[in-house]
Amino acid sequence: MSLILALDFGGTKLAAAIAHANSQEWLSYERCLSPANANASTDLEIMRSLIHSLLQELKPTAIGVSFGGPVDANTGTVKLSHHVPGWENIPLQKLLADEYGVSVSVDNDANVAALGEYRYGAGVGYDSLFYITVSTGVGGGWILNGKPWRGANGMAGEIGHIVVDPAGPICLCGKRGCVERLASGPYMALDVREWLETRGRGDGETRGRADGETWGHGDGETRGRGDRETRGRGDGETRGHGDGEILRGLVEGNLELITGKIVSEAAMQGDELAQDILHRSAWALGVGIGNVANLINPQRFVLGGSVTKAGEGFWQVIRQVARETALPEINFEVVPAGLGDHAPLWGAVALALDTL
Amino acid sequence: MSLILALDFGGTKLAAAIAHANSQEWLSYERCLSPANANASTDLEIMRSLIHSLLQELKPTAIGVSFGGPVDANTGTVKLSHHVPGWENIPLQKLLADEYGVSVSVDNDANVAALGEYRYGAGVGYDSLFYITVSTGVGGGWILNGKPWRGANGMAGEIGHIVVDPAGPICLCGKRGCVERLASGPYMALDVREWLETRGRGDGETRGRADGETWGHGDGETRGRGDRETRGRGDGETRGHGDGEILRGLVEGNLELITGKIVSEAAMQGDELAQDILHRSAWALGVGIGNVANLINPQRFVLGGSVTKAGEGFWQVIRQVARETALPEINFEVVPAGLGDHAPLWGAVALALDTL
Repeated sequence: MSLILALDFGGTKLAAAIAHANSQEWLSYERCLSPANANASTDLEIMRSLIHSLLQELKPTAIGVSFGGPVDANTGTVKLSHHVPGWENIPLQKLLADEYGVSVSVDNDANVAALGEYRYGAGVGYDSLFYITVSTGVGGGWILNGKPWRGANGMAGEIGHIVVDPAGPICLCGKRGCVERLASGPYMALDVREWLETRGRGDGETRGRADGETWGHGDGETRGRGDRETRGRGDGETRGHGDGEILRGLVEGNLELITGKIVSEAAMQGDELAQDILHRSAWALGVGIGNVANLINPQRFVLGGSVTKAGEGFWQVIRQVARETALPEINFEVVPAGLGDHAPLWGAVALALDTL
Repeated sequence: MSLILALDFGGTKLAAAIAHANSQEWLSYERCLSPANANASTDLEIMRSLIHSLLQELKPTAIGVSFGGPVDANTGTVKLSHHVPGWENIPLQKLLADEYGVSVSVDNDANVAALGEYRYGAGVGYDSLFYITVSTGVGGGWILNGKPWRGANGMAGEIGHIVVDPAGPICLCGKRGCVERLASGPYMALDVREWLETRGRGDGETRGRADGETWGHGDGETRGRGDRETRGRGDGETRGHGDGEILRGLVEGNLELITGKIVSEAAMQGDELAQDILHRSAWALGVGIGNVANLINPQRFVLGGSVTKAGEGFWQVIRQVARETALPEINFEVVPAGLGDHAPLWGAVALALDTL
């Protein structure tokens, strides 16, 4: 029986697992955080030890690999990692094929996760879908006609860097108002921190929300468009967000500790600043998804990543703004990913099976 | 030798042509404007007479049809026309197949034109491309892996209704700042007309452009982003555009006569208002194209339609804004369509050939 080895080189963690070809359960699974000063060599060494502990004396039939960064999927050569140095132009597919003597297939994590969700997760039966992951960044992967669509030079799926608000804040990529700049965890944390530092407690600028809306209890109207009409509301420049007391409390006043996850937590506890920032994140994703629906008209959008665990209110805003942004004739669904953090590994299984 | 009959049901005109299967020249070509009170029946009657005059006693081997409106390409049933009443749910493919006794294929004009450019025009050799037409509306059609991509329910390619400026003017579709709202001919004419009517001659509001840029002589900086930073500049709300004298002159003071074409003409003659409006059109197309490059990474963008004849300055802005909007790793080209108004007819030939 075919034994598939699946590897996931993430930005901050390494994971590996084995499964039989016809199974949807792991025979065995191992993971390990990347060390603080990781480079390509240490990542490879750690992965080798995970593989050894999984396989013991077994030999895999094929290997599939998800890599957290741009990859030339034709040759399986890593272009670079945005998190770990030393990955520039590493021929990962050839390296593993030589080492283990079996067929290997490598692709970037968003494409692989899309394939995983398509074969084993929330995309089963949907021949055209767009998978979006929203966590430290915002990335995406395509399935079109039942196969991965990688683009002419392997760069398709970059929904994180489509512009949804040309008057929005500046992203590291140089543009204003990218989806990633508005929707990703670290940027949400940054904006919250900045707001608390510059316009915080008792400076007379804060005031309650004029519209009296509460997060997660939609009245059928989303705030996104209105936000843009009164310009800058989302940035906290022309209105208050409450006083962020819950946020401050969660990090005991140490604003450096604020993360995307803390923002979600504070929003669920009723913090208005956190709710507004999460609302803007959901609005940006909704505009992005609606635009993608207009352009490509896939059957399904599958959303995963830590930020998407922000609660039902977050999903309501995404779905409503996406529906308003897409033309009324265009049908689509926006659903949560089914495989969670294992989507890249299951996608790697599918990649490996496709080489047989 | 195979004789192909190509039909183009446009919104305002009807055209038909015949060609041999291996040829790239028409054997014969006919066209006719739709009458003022056209409906589906009159359109079909006119088309029958065009066909009769083309074919005489000949019998075509296959028929391809471009239709100006949404079509179910699987069944060849027209959903509706936005311009001509009576087309709702007309089974055009079956109707023609019964009448002429040959295989017939029908699709909407943007998809068909994309196929035409791919097989015979500016897209030859490019297996992934996006065709965009910019005239009375803004539409698009996909070629992916060498084949039309129509979307899960046949609605892919609607670049005209992706939002590029959520603070922009309201489109007929209900959203703000769609590409079509900013880039299409009739909307440019509308905005120019409105500006001239409300803030026109000698009211003291107009002033020269602060940045001293001249249309078509790019200094390597585009104005789009800046426009958004100072908000509303593109709408003429916080700055002047010169006095529109050239525009007024071209229509002899009758503002109702202003069209997209007149705006282009005035811009070429140096009218600053016209140049600003055209700049905003090019900016919107550039953001749209850059976003599409990030999402799908096609090799080529092929642009046709009357508005794209606005001159080299227009193309420079599109290309530069698209380049700035796309991630630097993403390669693409933006080129003019090669077949002009004949793109749908040549695409219809390709459609017909694919049925053989």
